[in-house]
Amino acid sequence: MNYGIAIFPSKPIQDQANALRKRYDPHYSWIPPHITLKEKFEADDNKLNELISELKTIANATEPFTINIDKVRSFAPITNTIYFKVEPIQVLLDLQEKMNTGKFKDTNKHPFVPHITIAQDLLDDEYSDVYGRLEMEEFHLEDQVDRFQLLYQLDNGSWTVYETFVFGKE
Amino acid sequence: MNYGIAIFPSKPIQDQANALRKRYDPHYSWIPPHITLKEKFEADDNKLNELISELKTIANATEPFTINIDKVRSFAPITNTIYFKVEPIQVLLDLQEKMNTGKFKDTNKHPFVPHITIAQDLLDDEYSDVYGRLEMEEFHLEDQVDRFQLLYQLDNGSWTVYETFVFGKE
Repeated sequence: MNYGIAIFPSKPIQDQANALRKRYDPHYSWIPPHITLKEKFEADDNKLNELISELKTIANATEPFTINIDKVRSFAPITNTIYFKVEPIQVLLDLQEKMNTGKFKDTNKHPFVPHITIAQDLLDDEYSDVYGRLEMEEFHLEDQVDRFQLLYQLDNGSWTVYETFVFGKE
Repeated sequence: MNYGIAIFPSKPIQDQANALRKRYDPHYSWIPPHITLKEKFEADDNKLNELISELKTIANATEPFTINIDKVRSFAPITNTIYFKVEPIQVLLDLQEKMNTGKFKDTNKHPFVPHITIAQDLLDDEYSDVYGRLEMEEFHLEDQVDRFQLLYQLDNGSWTVYETFVFGKE
């Protein structure tokens, strides 16, 4: 089965991201707006149990932290994905690092750039248009993060949450 | 904020339900296939924390159980919703009851009939057609349930998982 690990920002940020995703992101209905911590990976039940135990240890050792978002950026020319750029604070980088070393296979396809995708798979003209408009916008979003989620993928491409890991518990 | 409580069956059952939901359920993209334990309710942050503590107590006191599904039924003539009927075993009824008494406001609009919706809001002709076909099918699905999920609703109508409660933990 395919698994992934993500942070869901709080409702106001999800709503704001969805207002754009609805029009510009074909994955809109597959998963709520999120910050990917660990990209898709395969695991059987035994391996999964081992990883869940490790994820609990990681969550227990993590303190809630604040994220800041104040610009829209793009992964062009690699892909034309447009995203809310999440300030890459050390605690977030450390958290992601822990899920891609040791018992975890490194599933990163790219260096970790914390982000919330708001548009992808656009045609070139639409991409230029949307990005040209959004990259100029001034805004500031702030959010408290106190948990991450382990998800698995269904046959239709969508994701279901398997377990929530709250920071500093137990 | 609006919250709800649900069980996600395991992937094979979700995939099977989605194969039908994709065509027949306009809520298909709002939430994965699920058994609703507690219908939509409102709570502020204080109330939510109180309820989460209660949900932990409930989960701790619940042992994993097996559910069985072997027929498709409909809520007609009340609504034309078509669903996988989940055998109403006592442990499931008890679990649902605990979330609708005491600290929890009873949010049931109808008596509790455990089910996984596969079709809703169909036109009469399509409903008759789909239900006529599905109610004749013979099948047997069995699943282990060891957790439930607390979700909140976004502005677009979709649901995000807030926290998972695993049975018999802590």
